[in-house]
Amino acid sequence: MAVTRYQALADDIARAIREGLLQAGDKLPSVRDTCATRGVSPSTVFQAYYLLEARGLVQARPRSGYYVRALPASLPPEPDTSQPRGDSRPLAISERIFDILGSVRDRKVVPLGSAFPSASLFPLEQLGQAMAGYLRHLDPHDTVESLSPGYPRLRRQIALRYRAAGVPVTPDDVVITTGALEALNLCLHVTTRPGDAVIVESPTFYGALQALEQRGLKAVEVPTHPRQGIDLQALEAAIRRHSPKACWLMTQFQNPLGSLMSQTGKRDLVALLRRHQIPLIEDDVYGELYFGDSRPLPAKAYDTDGLVLHCASFSKCLAPGFRIGWAVAGRYARAVQRLKLATTLSASVPAQGSLAGYLERGGYDRHLRRLRATLAAQQERMLDAVARYFPPGTRVTRPQGGFFVWLEMPAPADALDLHRRALARGISVAPGPIFSAGGQFAHALRLNYGHPWDDRMEDAMRELGALAGRRRGAAPRAGASG
Amino acid sequence: MAVTRYQALADDIARAIREGLLQAGDKLPSVRDTCATRGVSPSTVFQAYYLLEARGLVQARPRSGYYVRALPASLPPEPDTSQPRGDSRPLAISERIFDILGSVRDRKVVPLGSAFPSASLFPLEQLGQAMAGYLRHLDPHDTVESLSPGYPRLRRQIALRYRAAGVPVTPDDVVITTGALEALNLCLHVTTRPGDAVIVESPTFYGALQALEQRGLKAVEVPTHPRQGIDLQALEAAIRRHSPKACWLMTQFQNPLGSLMSQTGKRDLVALLRRHQIPLIEDDVYGELYFGDSRPLPAKAYDTDGLVLHCASFSKCLAPGFRIGWAVAGRYARAVQRLKLATTLSASVPAQGSLAGYLERGGYDRHLRRLRATLAAQQERMLDAVARYFPPGTRVTRPQGGFFVWLEMPAPADALDLHRRALARGISVAPGPIFSAGGQFAHALRLNYGHPWDDRMEDAMRELGALAGRRRGAAPRAGASG
Repeated sequence: MAVTRYQALADDIARAIREGLLQAGDKLPSVRDTCATRGVSPSTVFQAYYLLEARGLVQARPRSGYYVRALPASLPPEPDTSQPRGDSRPLAISERIFDILGSVRDRKVVPLGSAFPSASLFPLEQLGQAMAGYLRHLDPHDTVESLSPGYPRLRRQIALRYRAAGVPVTPDDVVITTGALEALNLCLHVTTRPGDAVIVESPTFYGALQALEQRGLKAVEVPTHPRQGIDLQALEAAIRRHSPKACWLMTQFQNPLGSLMSQTGKRDLVALLRRHQIPLIEDDVYGELYFGDSRPLPAKAYDTDGLVLHCASFSKCLAPGFRIGWAVAGRYARAVQRLKLATTLSASVPAQGSLAGYLERGGYDRHLRRLRATLAAQQERMLDAVARYFPPGTRVTRPQGGFFVWLEMPAPADALDLHRRALARGISVAPGPIFSAGGQFAHALRLNYGHPWDDRMEDAMRELGALAGRRRGAAPRAGASG
Repeated sequence: MAVTRYQALADDIARAIREGLLQAGDKLPSVRDTCATRGVSPSTVFQAYYLLEARGLVQARPRSGYYVRALPASLPPEPDTSQPRGDSRPLAISERIFDILGSVRDRKVVPLGSAFPSASLFPLEQLGQAMAGYLRHLDPHDTVESLSPGYPRLRRQIALRYRAAGVPVTPDDVVITTGALEALNLCLHVTTRPGDAVIVESPTFYGALQALEQRGLKAVEVPTHPRQGIDLQALEAAIRRHSPKACWLMTQFQNPLGSLMSQTGKRDLVALLRRHQIPLIEDDVYGELYFGDSRPLPAKAYDTDGLVLHCASFSKCLAPGFRIGWAVAGRYARAVQRLKLATTLSASVPAQGSLAGYLERGGYDRHLRRLRATLAAQQERMLDAVARYFPPGTRVTRPQGGFFVWLEMPAPADALDLHRRALARGISVAPGPIFSAGGQFAHALRLNYGHPWDDRMEDAMRELGALAGRRRGAAPRAGASG
């Protein structure tokens, strides 16, 4: 995305703050002065200041102006590569995951443990208009047309987005599903039989663990770096040792780590799996939520053999609750399409039709640009809060996209106990052990920054930090006002 | 439903036609005369005559009046109880079913083989208004609220309908699914393990056979009567022989036979299964489409042990394509809810919300009354066409609800060959072998009367009858005009 004038100005000022040129308590130049010195319009300056405020770098004081906030000296360090046990194991974790997830549904609870971004981030009104427009001109035959593989107009729009990103996909390659979770489950079903071993990251999305458990599969957890993603050497060793029948990986903004494999990494991953003829189920539901300049290419882009089953959805980036996802399943596409037909027949037709209409009309990319900027700003606020309120020795990821950070507390720490104590105070967290087949990560939390940052969030982070261990001295507290 | 004045008048005239009091070519009395002799309003007479016309008993001649149509001497006899082989068998039929079903999607094909009723039968405009209304007042938290078990307002409406029908169900018993097919698959999953035997009717819904095949189960087909449903003596013998882990039955307007078990039969069925502690997956998607005076009670009404998993949807009676179904799964409810959460998370939220709004506003029962009357009239047209055009020795069911008849052709007959030849002429049928694990019913067809009866349907039935065997003489042809 092109950087606008106000973003450039905001980035400039942010750099000055990070470099200490502007310090806590300093007043930003007035809008009028900045217009004069920079040669920009007042609106550009206002937007830049708003953006800096959203990022938590400055704060407005009524009838006075914008002031630089006190920043923590530095962000906490990032976690190390994970070290799973290396065995393959059948799963018995689903019930615990359900119990924990069920406890965080209450709307009165601060949703730091939620798996969903705030619905306020999405263009619900435009989606409503698209739905109304679709239903006004509903062709009764659409019900039949929308049966798996899905509504042709929507499959075309999805294929167009792949092409725009540089991945050659045709509408015929796309199977529409009830959210990405169904796509992933279908892909797992067509590539494995009960008893098979399947490679996952460590830590991994608990939904993958539940799917493996339902299908009677064994999980092989492979070391994963919080920035680079799965360790390819460790992956190759695990393949040789366990002869897995599939890999289920999130190459981009992995849940919960937020790791993003490099393009080279993804290409090498595909090449490695091709040599062993192992299908890759690529869960790419966060791919649109990048904070960099352009959409990173998924591993699917390097797939020449039809061995990559790419799964995604609109649930995290456009229309939560519509339950529209899809699979581009390469050589397994027909099997996925037919299994979908035999198990749930089709995804909701009004949801398919209205999303097709919304995408055809344009405006999706504009929405995404806004959404990415919002999430990036909210991540800064959350990292800032971690630095302020969590005990020394805390480590936290700095993902380049998505809406989760992964936080490791200094030992001794008990994330399940923290989860219970936080919930009693009206705050949810996602405790580390639900992201592991073997109950690892007792010291870790996944935190969600996909909700508007407000005093409630700030207070919840302060309380979490206190629960997590000894509080730091008075210095962070002073900086926390605002 | 109470019989209205015009229905009573139409029934009276229909009886006179059936009994030969009024004969082919006779003119019905003028509206004015009938008003005078019956003491009813002109509108009542007009509605009665329209209804008789819809049933195919009379036809209007422009500027002349209504005349009795030529009727076949009598309807063909009904089929006998089925005689499956009695073994239990793993399945390998899914691919054939897919091939045949895929071929009937074309909108130019006359949809006698379709599994769906015409979308023109449904209140699409009111549903669109309900959807728009829901989206205008969307609560962002609904996405979380609608996670399995599903949107509370919709679960409440569904529970209320059970209660109105005399089945004590609470909102907490209901799990919303992506159509009944998902509900059925979830119920099958939580009651069985791969390799188990499962009881089905003979013939049975091909979706059940596909679900069994996907899950690696063995099918035990039990003799089923075209009016009374599954034979309980044969069922008990099959239970003793095969120790099945579940029964998947359609007790009401079974697909494809249209059979309706009596209330005694359903009560005895539940008692029998309770003695053997075998769960009953009751597929009741056609239950609302009864032609009698009131909704027949499903087997679930006699369930005291939580062993009946009742599955239904709005797809056949209100909102095709919305993909909203549900399970009331007794002692398995929690397992179904969690499996749903782990595989597809939730059904489409706008679809759940708008159906809740539609049901709350009222009007559903009015729609259903109209729909049932339309389907009953269309069944008469179809049976009439079977009598006219199909060869002697043809047998056909006369279901008391739903929108399918099951037709058995005299030997030698090859339904798969007929399917291919009919399709080449732009007509679809559902050939008997897709309703059997063992490829039985080579002489049978399922025909759909859920589409408006018009010349295209009449012509298609004439062509099918000709394909099915030697044509009868000239007499039916003369009667076919109109």
